[in-house]
Amino acid sequence: MNINHILIVSPMFEEIRAIIEQQNIQKQFRYVNEEQLTADDLEWADALACFNLQSNVDYSQVKWVHSLGAGVDRFLFGKQWNEQVLLTRTICSFGQRIGEYCLSYIVKDLQYHDTFQMAQHQKRWTPMTPKLLGSQKVMIYGTGEIGQKTAQILSSLGMDVYGVSLTGKSKDYFKEVMTIDHHFSRLSEMDYIINTLPLTEQTKGLFSKSIFSHVSEVGFINVGRGATVDEQALLNGLNEGHIRFAVLDVFEKEPLPEENPLWSHPNVQITPHISAVTTPDEGVECFLETLKNVEEDKPLVNRVDPVKGY
Amino acid sequence: MNINHILIVSPMFEEIRAIIEQQNIQKQFRYVNEEQLTADDLEWADALACFNLQSNVDYSQVKWVHSLGAGVDRFLFGKQWNEQVLLTRTICSFGQRIGEYCLSYIVKDLQYHDTFQMAQHQKRWTPMTPKLLGSQKVMIYGTGEIGQKTAQILSSLGMDVYGVSLTGKSKDYFKEVMTIDHHFSRLSEMDYIINTLPLTEQTKGLFSKSIFSHVSEVGFINVGRGATVDEQALLNGLNEGHIRFAVLDVFEKEPLPEENPLWSHPNVQITPHISAVTTPDEGVECFLETLKNVEEDKPLVNRVDPVKGY
Repeated sequence: MNINHILIVSPMFEEIRAIIEQQNIQKQFRYVNEEQLTADDLEWADALACFNLQSNVDYSQVKWVHSLGAGVDRFLFGKQWNEQVLLTRTICSFGQRIGEYCLSYIVKDLQYHDTFQMAQHQKRWTPMTPKLLGSQKVMIYGTGEIGQKTAQILSSLGMDVYGVSLTGKSKDYFKEVMTIDHHFSRLSEMDYIINTLPLTEQTKGLFSKSIFSHVSEVGFINVGRGATVDEQALLNGLNEGHIRFAVLDVFEKEPLPEENPLWSHPNVQITPHISAVTTPDEGVECFLETLKNVEEDKPLVNRVDPVKGY
Repeated sequence: MNINHILIVSPMFEEIRAIIEQQNIQKQFRYVNEEQLTADDLEWADALACFNLQSNVDYSQVKWVHSLGAGVDRFLFGKQWNEQVLLTRTICSFGQRIGEYCLSYIVKDLQYHDTFQMAQHQKRWTPMTPKLLGSQKVMIYGTGEIGQKTAQILSSLGMDVYGVSLTGKSKDYFKEVMTIDHHFSRLSEMDYIINTLPLTEQTKGLFSKSIFSHVSEVGFINVGRGATVDEQALLNGLNEGHIRFAVLDVFEKEPLPEENPLWSHPNVQITPHISAVTTPDEGVECFLETLKNVEEDKPLVNRVDPVKGY
């Protein structure tokens, strides 16, 4: 595929331009933010790299759309994709980033950070023995790039890592991978569950009573997509003790509205969708690598299947 | 060496007894706590396993003393050891425990746990990009069992790990090991410094202005011994910005006295000497393994050199 005109649409287009201009790429680039984007830009472009696709954007003349984020639900969910147009996404360091995010909240829990912080405020010396990662079990939903890298990090530190995927196909770093239908019997053993799933027709609202009623005092970490979780079921699970605490980085509506009860739940920790940020450097690196592969007609590990949704 | 009479002195002697009695060891045991210990017990014993050695305890008729903790400064520091008596210490899972403790506070920092917690209290959605372990440098003081295991854990997650030891001899998992005299020029590059050193004549007060004045905005983690740190120099380092924060698990006086200013310093996190707890199970396991090696005159990896002090 020949790509000559590349259109970058991003609120960070200035940073991205600065990085690309250092690399001496023999292509024509246009850099705009979403508000500035015109029909003329789209007609001019062979390739479009952006975080989001507004519903009124007609990308059908573009040969290739590249998502500057890992998730492509903003491109596909509830929409019809034009199959003539190649769709790719950023993979880069997301797995490492999300793995370290999850690890940080698990070791925070095992090392009783909150308990010791509270004791310090009261100047109380009250020893408790932290738990080792090697004594803990975690179920990771999603065994793709992100789920597998997270599994690698956690298993390398001794955790028993189980996986859930559409196919149930076994993968490195997982002791066992199961399909949703077959994973329920294992759930009660878990100390933690981690959601890395994309938002698709099958995953919407997946984390509901049917999952939460099977776990007991579990730590739930959501780094997938907010809409995969039934929020009321999550609150019930927290209040009934199925879920000991929740760490949530993604929400159905972002930024999380001020009136949402999750903000002030004592056993919920909120982070503002930061577990897998693309830095401009990483986004450009992944885009240029993909560009090279697209032009040389090489296999694309980050190609999205618009029907599957990831 | 023949060992028939074993004296266990510990506040946890009941738990230890329960574990040992399950194992059907063909030896005679006595279990007491420190207050109950008599001269008759010491005369009777071939081996003494304890956490501490009171200054009035005459252990010279015992063939072997085993420390149920990793540190042996309570046995040796400022005392004269009877060289006829074998001294061993617990090694077990200390390295893993201390490694996970250090890791937890490093990822807490890199993932901005405190910042996001504060934002949540105010229901503010303010994204910040966490830093990856792979972008960070750490200097570990002490390259023995504990320092090396900590280096292994942190380097496996991508950190650049440097070491400081008496000999400066290179070791696995460290990019470079230096002697104290040669390490100062590297200090300004470090994001974190971790102290795992035992208390000896050479290490007492080692962490003083001479080290702290070379670092800049560093995170300082002390899992070695409290008396290796000059507390006033630490407070000055914190107040002058050389030390961004300190995580302290050990103190010159434990429990840390209520009037100590470290308790309420905003950039100090206190934990009550829990980073390397011996659980009764682990303590017994290590003791019985050492017993077997002692009786079979095998090499002892956990033998203490009373002159070196570790």
